[in-house]
Amino acid sequence: MAVKSWLASANELDSDFPIQNLPYGVFRYRGQTHIGIAIGDQILDLDACVSSGLFKSLPEEIQRACQSEMLNELMALGPDAWSELRMLVTSLLDTQGASGETQAHTEAALLPISDATMQLPAQIGDYTDFYASIDHATRVGKLFRPDNPLLPNYKHIPIGYHGRASSIVISGCDICRPCGQTKAPEAEPTFGPAKSLDYELEVGIFIGPGNLLGESISIDEAERHIFGLCLVNDWSARDMQTWEYQPLGPFLAKSFATTISPWVVPLEALAPYRVPARKRAEGAPDPLSYLKSSHEESDGIDLTLEVYLDSRKMREAGIKPERLSCGNLRDLYWSIAQLVTHHTSNGCNLRAGDLLATGTVSGPEEGSEGCLLEMRHRAQPLRVATGEQRTFLQDGDRVILRAFAQKPGLPRIGFGECTGTITKAIIKQ
Amino acid sequence: MAVKSWLASANELDSDFPIQNLPYGVFRYRGQTHIGIAIGDQILDLDACVSSGLFKSLPEEIQRACQSEMLNELMALGPDAWSELRMLVTSLLDTQGASGETQAHTEAALLPISDATMQLPAQIGDYTDFYASIDHATRVGKLFRPDNPLLPNYKHIPIGYHGRASSIVISGCDICRPCGQTKAPEAEPTFGPAKSLDYELEVGIFIGPGNLLGESISIDEAERHIFGLCLVNDWSARDMQTWEYQPLGPFLAKSFATTISPWVVPLEALAPYRVPARKRAEGAPDPLSYLKSSHEESDGIDLTLEVYLDSRKMREAGIKPERLSCGNLRDLYWSIAQLVTHHTSNGCNLRAGDLLATGTVSGPEEGSEGCLLEMRHRAQPLRVATGEQRTFLQDGDRVILRAFAQKPGLPRIGFGECTGTITKAIIKQ
Repeated sequence: MAVKSWLASANELDSDFPIQNLPYGVFRYRGQTHIGIAIGDQILDLDACVSSGLFKSLPEEIQRACQSEMLNELMALGPDAWSELRMLVTSLLDTQGASGETQAHTEAALLPISDATMQLPAQIGDYTDFYASIDHATRVGKLFRPDNPLLPNYKHIPIGYHGRASSIVISGCDICRPCGQTKAPEAEPTFGPAKSLDYELEVGIFIGPGNLLGESISIDEAERHIFGLCLVNDWSARDMQTWEYQPLGPFLAKSFATTISPWVVPLEALAPYRVPARKRAEGAPDPLSYLKSSHEESDGIDLTLEVYLDSRKMREAGIKPERLSCGNLRDLYWSIAQLVTHHTSNGCNLRAGDLLATGTVSGPEEGSEGCLLEMRHRAQPLRVATGEQRTFLQDGDRVILRAFAQKPGLPRIGFGECTGTITKAIIKQ
Repeated sequence: MAVKSWLASANELDSDFPIQNLPYGVFRYRGQTHIGIAIGDQILDLDACVSSGLFKSLPEEIQRACQSEMLNELMALGPDAWSELRMLVTSLLDTQGASGETQAHTEAALLPISDATMQLPAQIGDYTDFYASIDHATRVGKLFRPDNPLLPNYKHIPIGYHGRASSIVISGCDICRPCGQTKAPEAEPTFGPAKSLDYELEVGIFIGPGNLLGESISIDEAERHIFGLCLVNDWSARDMQTWEYQPLGPFLAKSFATTISPWVVPLEALAPYRVPARKRAEGAPDPLSYLKSSHEESDGIDLTLEVYLDSRKMREAGIKPERLSCGNLRDLYWSIAQLVTHHTSNGCNLRAGDLLATGTVSGPEEGSEGCLLEMRHRAQPLRVATGEQRTFLQDGDRVILRAFAQKPGLPRIGFGECTGTITKAIIKQ
């Protein structure tokens, strides 16, 4: 029998935030910015918990980190501190803790999620985007090289690139269609609104304790440097990308905006959903020793990932958002630990609050493509309930990413939503 | 007759820091971190200037920015504030200001550069590296595509990529040879110390006031968003780069370290050295209108750029560092204004303290190559006075970048040095 909370909304079957989840976020409420933990339809205000003495049994450094306006300080403290805090919060919210003064103080530290404005959870020093889904790389590669879709390096080395940190925005922010240079075949390049605007469904990895410049993080230590996961929509202007990306990779086609979900789900909450890393196909190379984990049986995460489209027409017609795809994080070719270790294998320093993203997560089957570009391989173009067709995103489209882990006998661990609505380009010339 | 300072060392012919320069930096001295301005062989401590009332005629926001431990706040204030501060500092240091109590206070705010430890001048939120030298792009492209060295996009769009901000270090820091994956032709990939370690001579552009997400900076406003310039050594592991860079660009081959020089030279100091932007060859496309400047006659900067090698053998033999190349910033294909404008043309927000770099600056002639990779085109391999040959850098090599602007009748505006010494790889497996 799973632990329950005395807070009824946390025990509802469709809640993303049962007591087994306890994701961290940063919220604004009545002019103040605090760290909170989502529980049911409420936020537990950690600053209030410290002030009212609920956290007085915790070491001072944890209490201080809980009173910060960003998660960086708490992220830097490491997994033992996170476990200690998580255990205490669990005890405050579970049915055992349901009595007397402690419950009264805890209740006083709760506020409805709907009353708060979520902020970026951390100051993100650097943002790195990977390319860890082999099904995504293969489908995209096929568009350019039908006979040889996957480049020779793919199965040996995790491919990644530096992204733009300044333009990372929190779920709910509008996304203005970018302008940029594009070039049609046989035509001269022009500057104007991107026509091929796409989403990319990704999972974000928030770094906990970092490493010093010149040091690296071994594969078996890597997860101790991961604070938690969130959702990432790496919006992409495909027509701009095609024209600009040779030879140094994507740049303005991505840097106009990246949306992340506000709640960072601790790895500890995902422990029951660990699964073996994706099995390498017969004949595929073994990872080099620095990337070879000694617990491959649990390097994957069984996390369902969904994309929904909510078009203007759907909203006008009162039609619910329609699911465009459903994939799973377990399909990644490179594990999250391998991404962290590879990133630091040259001595590059990660800092607490840095964000790594997996790259578009797709599966092998039709229906599990994590971006619109990949759906070009389908026999029929994408068509939704309103009769609308979508090759790329239209102005007014709202894209919703969702993720959850579930298994029999356990409540579902949800990630909340990661949303953004495309608005009309502002023409600059 | 050029203005002189009452500080004798500022008037020496070979000084990088005459009163016409006044570059900004951040230094540590006796346990404190302050902003300073280099003058001759001294640093003017701006915190001390505020404390002693020398800056009391300045608006409070400028005084406050001068007492910060980073330049970001001053950078954000914009060119009118920078001019005001510069004018006052000039008046304190010039021969007119040489008398009485004011000079005594100013002298009290000076300390020898040699007593201070220079720090990174700003908190660098994001670092972007461009590819603005057509001679560099052509020479490097020729190694891969002898018949078609320059990609079709080059003359239309400034190519750039996001770099790693966390591993930017200040001049003087040792550079540990990185480990990484490389692959020899016909062999399996292996992990180990990079063999083809190179420097890249670049100029860095520190951003002053930024722009909001979704807004762009027009080409004729671009330079008002530039605080100043420094030197950048974008160390590159060529063997790692070759294996990892497809399809998303350079990643770990660059992110192990980037060295910058400590002094940020204001654009105002370079005003006498402005020259026309590089003339486009017959038949080359006109820039698209968003990149078309209305003052092409002064979009370039006549700045001499040098690379010196100081090998272990040279030091042991008491031989002076040897110059490997000499180029000029005026050879860039894309101006610094075009880089800023292009970067924001998709609505990407720049923030005060962000660093843009030009990419390797090379000229058309032999002897002006900004990195070792380009010297492969020479008939003879690079050989220095000790008899040593260099295809790539060896452990113990110290690389020194220098830059200066000069013309008859004016003192030379120097950038100081940007140095780093390669140390042995730390083997991680």
